[in-house]
Amino acid sequence: MWGGRFTVGPAEVMEKINASIDFDKRMAAQDIAGSKAHCAMLVKQGIISPEDGKAILEGLDTILREIQEGRFTFSAALEDIHMNVENRLRELIGDAAGRLHTARSRNDQVATDFKLWVRGAIDELDKQTGLLISALIDQAEKNHDVIMPGYTHLQAAQPVTFGHHMLAYVEMFGRDRSRLIDCRKRLNECPLGAAALAGTSFPIDRHATATALAFDRPTANSLDSVSDRDYALEFMSAGAIMAIHLSRFAEELVIWCSQGFGFVTLSDAFTTGSSIMPQKKNPDAAELIRGKAGRVIGALNTLLVVMKGLPLTYGKDMQEDKEPVFDAADTLILCVTAMTGMVADMKANRDKLHAATADGFLTATDLADWLVRELGLPFRDAHHVTGTIVKKAEDKKCDISELDLAEMQSVEPRITQEIFRFLTVEQSAQSRTSFGGTAPENVKAAAKAARERFIR
Amino acid sequence: MWGGRFTVGPAEVMEKINASIDFDKRMAAQDIAGSKAHCAMLVKQGIISPEDGKAILEGLDTILREIQEGRFTFSAALEDIHMNVENRLRELIGDAAGRLHTARSRNDQVATDFKLWVRGAIDELDKQTGLLISALIDQAEKNHDVIMPGYTHLQAAQPVTFGHHMLAYVEMFGRDRSRLIDCRKRLNECPLGAAALAGTSFPIDRHATATALAFDRPTANSLDSVSDRDYALEFMSAGAIMAIHLSRFAEELVIWCSQGFGFVTLSDAFTTGSSIMPQKKNPDAAELIRGKAGRVIGALNTLLVVMKGLPLTYGKDMQEDKEPVFDAADTLILCVTAMTGMVADMKANRDKLHAATADGFLTATDLADWLVRELGLPFRDAHHVTGTIVKKAEDKKCDISELDLAEMQSVEPRITQEIFRFLTVEQSAQSRTSFGGTAPENVKAAAKAARERFIR
Amino acid sequence: MWGGRFTVGPAEVMEKINASIDFDKRMAAQDIAGSKAHCAMLVKQGIISPEDGKAILEGLDTILREIQEGRFTFSAALEDIHMNVENRLRELIGDAAGRLHTARSRNDQVATDFKLWVRGAIDELDKQTGLLISALIDQAEKNHDVIMPGYTHLQAAQPVTFGHHMLAYVEMFGRDRSRLIDCRKRLNECPLGAAALAGTSFPIDRHATATALAFDRPTANSLDSVSDRDYALEFMSAGAIMAIHLSRFAEELVIWCSQGFGFVTLSDAFTTGSSIMPQKKNPDAAELIRGKAGRVIGALNTLLVVMKGLPLTYGKDMQEDKEPVFDAADTLILCVTAMTGMVADMKANRDKLHAATADGFLTATDLADWLVRELGLPFRDAHHVTGTIVKKAEDKKCDISELDLAEMQSVEPRITQEIFRFLTVEQSAQSRTSFGGTAPENVKAAAKAARERFIR
Amino acid sequence: MWGGRFTVGPAEVMEKINASIDFDKRMAAQDIAGSKAHCAMLVKQGIISPEDGKAILEGLDTILREIQEGRFTFSAALEDIHMNVENRLRELIGDAAGRLHTARSRNDQVATDFKLWVRGAIDELDKQTGLLISALIDQAEKNHDVIMPGYTHLQAAQPVTFGHHMLAYVEMFGRDRSRLIDCRKRLNECPLGAAALAGTSFPIDRHATATALAFDRPTANSLDSVSDRDYALEFMSAGAIMAIHLSRFAEELVIWCSQGFGFVTLSDAFTTGSSIMPQKKNPDAAELIRGKAGRVIGALNTLLVVMKGLPLTYGKDMQEDKEPVFDAADTLILCVTAMTGMVADMKANRDKLHAATADGFLTATDLADWLVRELGLPFRDAHHVTGTIVKKAEDKKCDISELDLAEMQSVEPRITQEIFRFLTVEQSAQSRTSFGGTAPENVKAAAKAARERFIR
Repeated sequence: MWGGRFTVGPAEVMEKINASIDFDKRMAAQDIAGSKAHCAMLVKQGIISPEDGKAILEGLDTILREIQEGRFTFSAALEDIHMNVENRLRELIGDAAGRLHTARSRNDQVATDFKLWVRGAIDELDKQTGLLISALIDQAEKNHDVIMPGYTHLQAAQPVTFGHHMLAYVEMFGRDRSRLIDCRKRLNECPLGAAALAGTSFPIDRHATATALAFDRPTANSLDSVSDRDYALEFMSAGAIMAIHLSRFAEELVIWCSQGFGFVTLSDAFTTGSSIMPQKKNPDAAELIRGKAGRVIGALNTLLVVMKGLPLTYGKDMQEDKEPVFDAADTLILCVTAMTGMVADMKANRDKLHAATADGFLTATDLADWLVRELGLPFRDAHHVTGTIVKKAEDKKCDISELDLAEMQSVEPRITQEIFRFLTVEQSAQSRTSFGGTAPENVKAAAKAARERFIR
Repeated sequence: MWGGRFTVGPAEVMEKINASIDFDKRMAAQDIAGSKAHCAMLVKQGIISPEDGKAILEGLDTILREIQEGRFTFSAALEDIHMNVENRLRELIGDAAGRLHTARSRNDQVATDFKLWVRGAIDELDKQTGLLISALIDQAEKNHDVIMPGYTHLQAAQPVTFGHHMLAYVEMFGRDRSRLIDCRKRLNECPLGAAALAGTSFPIDRHATATALAFDRPTANSLDSVSDRDYALEFMSAGAIMAIHLSRFAEELVIWCSQGFGFVTLSDAFTTGSSIMPQKKNPDAAELIRGKAGRVIGALNTLLVVMKGLPLTYGKDMQEDKEPVFDAADTLILCVTAMTGMVADMKANRDKLHAATADGFLTATDLADWLVRELGLPFRDAHHVTGTIVKKAEDKKCDISELDLAEMQSVEPRITQEIFRFLTVEQSAQSRTSFGGTAPENVKAAAKAARERFIR
Repeated sequence: MWGGRFTVGPAEVMEKINASIDFDKRMAAQDIAGSKAHCAMLVKQGIISPEDGKAILEGLDTILREIQEGRFTFSAALEDIHMNVENRLRELIGDAAGRLHTARSRNDQVATDFKLWVRGAIDELDKQTGLLISALIDQAEKNHDVIMPGYTHLQAAQPVTFGHHMLAYVEMFGRDRSRLIDCRKRLNECPLGAAALAGTSFPIDRHATATALAFDRPTANSLDSVSDRDYALEFMSAGAIMAIHLSRFAEELVIWCSQGFGFVTLSDAFTTGSSIMPQKKNPDAAELIRGKAGRVIGALNTLLVVMKGLPLTYGKDMQEDKEPVFDAADTLILCVTAMTGMVADMKANRDKLHAATADGFLTATDLADWLVRELGLPFRDAHHVTGTIVKKAEDKKCDISELDLAEMQSVEPRITQEIFRFLTVEQSAQSRTSFGGTAPENVKAAAKAARERFIR
Repeated sequence: MWGGRFTVGPAEVMEKINASIDFDKRMAAQDIAGSKAHCAMLVKQGIISPEDGKAILEGLDTILREIQEGRFTFSAALEDIHMNVENRLRELIGDAAGRLHTARSRNDQVATDFKLWVRGAIDELDKQTGLLISALIDQAEKNHDVIMPGYTHLQAAQPVTFGHHMLAYVEMFGRDRSRLIDCRKRLNECPLGAAALAGTSFPIDRHATATALAFDRPTANSLDSVSDRDYALEFMSAGAIMAIHLSRFAEELVIWCSQGFGFVTLSDAFTTGSSIMPQKKNPDAAELIRGKAGRVIGALNTLLVVMKGLPLTYGKDMQEDKEPVFDAADTLILCVTAMTGMVADMKANRDKLHAATADGFLTATDLADWLVRELGLPFRDAHHVTGTIVKKAEDKKCDISELDLAEMQSVEPRITQEIFRFLTVEQSAQSRTSFGGTAPENVKAAAKAARERFIR
């Protein structure tokens, strides 16, 4: 099987390694938009005639329709999307097609197309992330007072609310959107007109093409314009950090769905069953999101390695830029969308969440804080007292709230009956009213604020 | 040798794997600054007494001095910088030391310290990058009209100026600074007061500590506050992209220093010699900068892998965050500083640069452009005519400017004597006056503009 | 703070970026061993005199003792370990020291030293991994019949034994050792005598030095000898795969220690407590091992990036090879050692493990298999029948073994009373006697076989 | 465009993220081979009837033909290749199809299929690498006495032969093959029969299926069998190291093809031209090979990240294993094949190679060696004398061989006329006869030996 496929003659191998049309055809719409802007500018500047310009623009529109309607035949012999479009244009309008490439080169053309594509991907990912944030805030509001253990080291530590936990992810995805927006601003300079690498002697108007393509301005240096792939790297960096957030939430969902926890129930739409065990709901979507973080990190790493140590300006190595970016963008949008669906459908199991707070002496810190606040103990001493009391409870196999006052006073005689008010998980959560704390009222207010900060 | 070192008893292994003091002592100043802000706030809020507050602040100042003067003994048994400082404070001021930890935890403390450290690293790297940009602009101005081949595929393509090439890197490092600044803005929220993970019931003022530590505001969610390492990841992402730029320039310097090119001469201060070949100047600094890009990319990758799939909130895995960040920051600052020194000392070899423009028919595009502009040929046809003329020159082993008019006219009869004005590399470069193009006058103006845009 | 440290003059920066003595002093013993072998060969071949040879050997022994006893002063001005040793040799024995470097160069010297170091690290890691395997087999034997849920998707699926689970890791670590051994064999060719890059005109005997240093043979090509870092990359690749195994086990330990599972108890020696919650046992060592996998993966990535695209032969980039290798080796040995300690001390909580098998209808597959075996149903049909029965049990909130025969027969009339013999988790595990299956008797035999296969 | 594609309803998103048929259909032949072996064994063991067995085997053969002839319709609704095949089998042969899945599960089935695929990829890559080695040895023999500069730091250092340089790569690719072979041996254990994770109660014969599929033996632990992806990681590790070698050679080819070097001419078949500069030969294939190393490194990194920290046994994250492995295998085979074509066609430019040895005082080491050998100077002193002589030559802008004897004697009076015999680059190369050295006679012998060692 392998043999037949790969023992090929040199010329064939070269075509195989060299052609990019299989993947860069995804930039068809961007290529045509760039060509139209370039053409209009050439006419405006008197570099080509209005008649030729009109023919070119109409031809390009025809090609775009052909592609959108699946009637375009892509040819590997024509190597890439740029030559496929130009060749078809010549078929459609004849020699005038040859004037389109005046004062530009494939180098600035591909940089422009790719920037436009990345910009579109950023916009879509930003939008989808907004929907995810919205779903999380909905869950936060619905469960603002549902008590659960907060964890460190996957060990139950202090009571928090489920809503508060949801809002932690809102902060993460909110930062992700902010990174995407910064990346978009930085990339939004138009390389068109840098030509092969040195600029051109034609009297072009780069500000006009920049404006036509909704860039903020033209790039400032022609060598950099055709060498730069920062926008791809920065987009994938922001994406890798977002993938980390998605993977952390996915890990939690996998754990929460396990028999040992049972904290949430995912909907049928985002789990797979088993024909033999119909009760089984494998959290496949969550696992795939967790796994796909590896893919995004790998894609970022790929392009960093490709770009490292490349001399200026364009080198063919840079043709390896598109597939990792396309794959990272597709993956992220898919994962965010799947996560949004999962979150929207997810049911927090209030009883199991609360039951889990019974283990782990979650209000021990509250006891220590009381000793500091009411008895004036230094915190480190209060720690020590609390430790001794918890030890007593552990030995009796009960919670500290189930000890009697005498047992407590045997450790610290100044403890009063009042202490028991502070040893329920509800009271513990309610007392955490510091800014950003987990008190249900805080969470309610924070959810409202998050809606204002993040839902644009 | 190995045996003696690693066949250790369990307890010893645990201490070895667990302690972080060897590296986190680098955050001593940040830890003390954070503690001072926290202490002052506790006093202001009436949570601890002014007397205790005063003792704590004085004790912390003493400890800072001890550390700065190398008189502090770090203990691995005390695990980390936080416990080392707190323990010493207790030695110095007694029980009052125990009050400092009221309403905070190691989790928010370490997050605060680390953010302060990263912020400081950003500021230093930003400053050093400004100096590098400045050195590059100096070289651009000095060499704004020095002609050299511009390359694609490491093949000579069109004439550019050395100054223009320098300014390409100014754009790259300018974007790097802009990324650092965005990262700094995003990280500048204070986690102090998030406590272990849930906030606190003490009436703390998180806005006050945020302001005291020059943060823009407190973080909004306590769980996120102690789980978040985005700032480290984003800093290293920006750093990895910068490392790419450094490595590209380094690669060019290595090639430019080779016998085959000889484009620049590096100073003795940034090369190593050989006792046997005194003429030899190995571009070691450039090679190390190129190699160290791998290190920065590896450090970013390390932390992405560490963070992937971690459930909230703090997990001990996160102790692995500091070493890659410290190493990446040190490496980047070292590389930028070394690059600045190399660039400042570097001599462009005007003669060799010009001589290299003789090969490669660098003005072929100018010929084609003339055909388009003066004879109205479509660009693709002009390409074809030019190709035929270049073939003639190649067969005669001369440049196209050395052909006679008749030879040119045998390909395209309408070519006139005027063409020869456009076939020198000087004229070629001068004609590239489009925005961002390589014309010496453009470069001069661009250098001036760069100074305004980037030297703050 | 940063400013004072990094705004340094160029010369200082160059020394800082260039010197390697801070880390390559770890190769002191290897460097001296290599020099001694080289010296003895030079004498044997008559290239230097026996007197000079004797002086050199004695001098080198002295230096080794000085280093081992901490009496050696390393100098950054002398750049690296090789020059530090050679310089000291000249101090000790005078001009004869200058004869040692005949017919060799720093390039083959450093390659030899580094190979020796990596070989030593492999041997130590292999040995420590043997101890880990041994500890796992002990646990497997002790718990060969302890029933627990086997998981897919972290969902309980079928009963397995704890011992069987331990032996899964024995297979993994067994493959790791096998990879280390292959790597060792492949690296065991001696580069000494390749000189700078081209070989030498002196009548050296490379087979003699190879033998003296316990290499299998000299390397076959001098250019490759000084350019090759495959041994470092292969060692780190094998190490990264081992780190994956360690991280998977670590993840399981973290989950197993959570309140939701409680499957194992780790000893105090490998957990950290909390002064306030004395019952708390944070599985810090497991988390650190899991996190440190990121470090090893990052180190491998670093060196891959450094080596990619380097032209032959030695480039200074390659000085970046040692730190990632040293760090990966240290990390792996530390993690394996810590894991061995954890495993040796770990207590499987038989009751909790068994209790966890009550959820999840773990014997559903046994029911289906019975239908196939006894009633001749096609497996896919048996699946369907089983699914319907499980649904009944789920609706009744009981296990399938708690349904009565009539209920079963309402789905498939041919089911007999015999079925109930097959619906206990004990019977399920005992029935899995296929080669490699989980039946306790299998596990016992497999543990014995593993001891023979892996404990050398 | 984005909007239409990605704003999809949850169910659709789940299908999109979950289905693997788009890529795992590449394992169709392996899946059918595995099923046939399993079926034959079930018949042999009396678990299914000979009639059912015959129907299944014939049905599978029919399906294989349908796939090979492009007549098979893959369905995303059926998720993966396994269900697509099984479903079609049921269409073809009815209920008997349901018996095929007796005593196996998708978990061991997919592990078997994937191992078979990786094994096939190893065999093909090994074979193609053999062809590359063969082409390199051909070049080595043809150019065994062609002198060129050997480089360190991309600075000319000592004369070597072009053939010797080719053989350096033979060593590298030879080690690559050896790594592939080790990987193949280690993976060659058959997971079939591990079933879901615990083994099975059916009396299967795993040794029989292992033998039928040309595995050396069955895997020893059922949990490990379905959790293990070491073979994929090890294959990609070996591949990443090979990619490093390919990228190093590619970098050299790019530099050698530049105007500054001109050392080799690549054939038209492996370069791209420019319609405007017909003399231009861009080394696109070399650049792509260099760039694609990033892709292979990224793919390895991806799977390492995916596997890190996964609890046993199968998790859906592991579905992310195939695409990086497929991509890495395709990429490597493509790159090796393209490199073989380039090497076979490549012409070493003897004149330019020799001309390049004029710069750089390449015989300075020979002078120093003569001083050691003939005058008995310690090497370090000989270095010093040589340095002084080279300085004289540099000041006179001539080679050291162009100095007269008096000038040499002014530095070291004992130098005789004989020295000049040793200062030509030819003599220098010829003198390097140490084992593995660059002397043309050595290279000839080494090429012959390489043919025996590596061409199997």
